[in-house]
Amino acid sequence: MNFRELASKYKTPLYIYDLDYMTKQYEELKEAFKGRKSLLAYAIKSNSNLSVINHFAQMGSGADCVSIGEVRRAFLAGVPSYKIIFSGVGKSDEEIREAIEKEILYINVESEAELGRVELIAKELGANCRISIRVNPNIDPLTHPYISTGLHDNKFGVDIDSAKRMYIRANNSEHLDPVGIHFHIGSQLTELKPIYESAEIVADMVRSLQSIKIELKFFDIGGGLGVTYKDEVTIKPYDYAQAVLGTLKGLDLTIICEPGRFLTANAGYFLTKVLYEKKNGAKRFVVVDGAMNDLLRPSLYKAYHKIEAITESKSELSEADVVGPVCESGDFFAKDYMLPTLEHNDLLVVHSAGAYGFGMGSNYNTRGRSAEVAVKGGESRVIRKREEFEDLIALEKDYLVK
Amino acid sequence: MNFRELASKYKTPLYIYDLDYMTKQYEELKEAFKGRKSLLAYAIKSNSNLSVINHFAQMGSGADCVSIGEVRRAFLAGVPSYKIIFSGVGKSDEEIREAIEKEILYINVESEAELGRVELIAKELGANCRISIRVNPNIDPLTHPYISTGLHDNKFGVDIDSAKRMYIRANNSEHLDPVGIHFHIGSQLTELKPIYESAEIVADMVRSLQSIKIELKFFDIGGGLGVTYKDEVTIKPYDYAQAVLGTLKGLDLTIICEPGRFLTANAGYFLTKVLYEKKNGAKRFVVVDGAMNDLLRPSLYKAYHKIEAITESKSELSEADVVGPVCESGDFFAKDYMLPTLEHNDLLVVHSAGAYGFGMGSNYNTRGRSAEVAVKGGESRVIRKREEFEDLIALEKDYLVK
Repeated sequence: MNFRELASKYKTPLYIYDLDYMTKQYEELKEAFKGRKSLLAYAIKSNSNLSVINHFAQMGSGADCVSIGEVRRAFLAGVPSYKIIFSGVGKSDEEIREAIEKEILYINVESEAELGRVELIAKELGANCRISIRVNPNIDPLTHPYISTGLHDNKFGVDIDSAKRMYIRANNSEHLDPVGIHFHIGSQLTELKPIYESAEIVADMVRSLQSIKIELKFFDIGGGLGVTYKDEVTIKPYDYAQAVLGTLKGLDLTIICEPGRFLTANAGYFLTKVLYEKKNGAKRFVVVDGAMNDLLRPSLYKAYHKIEAITESKSELSEADVVGPVCESGDFFAKDYMLPTLEHNDLLVVHSAGAYGFGMGSNYNTRGRSAEVAVKGGESRVIRKREEFEDLIALEKDYLVK
Repeated sequence: MNFRELASKYKTPLYIYDLDYMTKQYEELKEAFKGRKSLLAYAIKSNSNLSVINHFAQMGSGADCVSIGEVRRAFLAGVPSYKIIFSGVGKSDEEIREAIEKEILYINVESEAELGRVELIAKELGANCRISIRVNPNIDPLTHPYISTGLHDNKFGVDIDSAKRMYIRANNSEHLDPVGIHFHIGSQLTELKPIYESAEIVADMVRSLQSIKIELKFFDIGGGLGVTYKDEVTIKPYDYAQAVLGTLKGLDLTIICEPGRFLTANAGYFLTKVLYEKKNGAKRFVVVDGAMNDLLRPSLYKAYHKIEAITESKSELSEADVVGPVCESGDFFAKDYMLPTLEHNDLLVVHSAGAYGFGMGSNYNTRGRSAEVAVKGGESRVIRKREEFEDLIALEKDYLVK
């Protein structure tokens, strides 16, 4: 990756995605499930650029969506309706209606109250809506609290007993067709045991439903496979698949896996330019042109991102905070990071920025969001234009009365 | 405020701003400084809607800006150039150039390296650029670490010794005109002592500069006056002004104050609709149609916001987490909050949402940002249109190659 050339061609700050890396990750995971019928449904929330979704769609990927906006993105990017899943704890009536009308693969239901809304709306539409139910297995995934989702303390899914009641209700309804079961205990998982234990619980549930003649087709294992940001030892896709498949003895189910971060995180780079070096007392700061409005993970999760300096500087390394122009002390990319002395216009590459990067971006401090660039086979091209000031005020300028 | 009517007229989620409350806050603070020449420069980052800026501009307010985007907003909203200040630790060359060309009141310089860039660019333009220097007095403001800015551990400003060196350099330059001095030790301040101590240090600095014939005109005390979110005892504007003015004996300076949160926080309401109630084990959740992409403060700062239920429900109160549809456990507005049993379509009003609310909003999970509505003299009107799906993909759809 020639970062200097990319910076000079597209300016900074800039998001860069290596599509070939995404391909490699996709193929490795798909291969791991080859013993079974399986569908990888790309988790759009991790990186929702239309061209990224389209890249996965071309390889046969489905889409895991958490808003009707994401469902629309999936359609627009060429994902067929029968590979689209709509999940999320808070679907509005309008979203449910549109999802039913679009005849997607299934709606992932996350509460009894939601099941009631889906049934009501399907009835109004004279439809029979395919659903899956998200089970919360009450297993600690051993990850960051904000991305842990499989405990009763979390808002996601329903407990086993409620799920069973809901399946019976759905099975008795003319407007609901229970076709799948879903669990997802968290993101950035690096331990196999909680995944295995959850799959066991959910597979037992499938058997118990079979015994009352409720036959499911899809075993949706969610996503959450961790990646290496710093020195995490991650789970191998093969081991992951084997652990899950091992729980399904005697069951004829299609596996649905919803990878997001695994496919995109390490395919992405956030490129930013050095504006100044400064010292306050003994404390060293490198001030760059990117900020928390571009990449929120360090601020929100205290997340680690590897930083690489592109510079002629041959100086010794010393500790520095890498900070942006936003007026908050929470605006940083790294604290006490070893870096050489840097000059105005040197570049810093923030690694592992392909997932939950651009998508969490804002216009805080009236900063336009960066451009996004895709690189494939050595060729680069823009896949999202840089936001200009005019874009930022487009929806409010007509209301300004002076 | 008739929230039911506003919800039915403008839909949810929705931001509502009470402009009359903003007026009252502005006038109280302006009045506190009446013994001196003073300028209130509204800190646009707290709420950057053009109509809000214009509301303050009509009362005579200036603008404190932290990006060239905010400077452009100020001009567009009718703030005169001689009342506009450009602050921030990371100004790019392009931003500095435009600020000089626009002949704003002054650029607030935050490092020696930046002083060099400003001088260079002013020279290129054949200009004499008015500057102020932000001094970091190394005083602990006793607030949240992310919004604390007055310690050497923070990226902001320069220490006293560096500042003095920079003033001498600026005074000797043909292209720099040092007219002011600035400090700002943090946001949401509720203790008078750190403010007073900082002002003392900075006022002494002004005297020491006088003794070497560097005469400043502006004493810029920043912003940061705290507000009541829950039960904070705040500083009275009168006491605040007296404490600062008390440090300026014998100095003929215009006070510049940069209020943001103080003017806007409690003027704002975030209105959201209940989608579902659900229970996971013993844990109760109220799922609403607003989310962390609309209001990030609870997730980012663990900030408290008062929540008011608009419902016919007469049930007993019990603890619930108020959560949004975004697929993160970090997506919440309140934890263990006492609320009655709520129905689909009941409303929740999130109070104190006028500052650092909409402006930190994102499109995470492909959710469009809410509309913004202003209320003045009992009349409401839209001041920013709700984002639609088409707005979200406008800058990327042309690059999708299928």
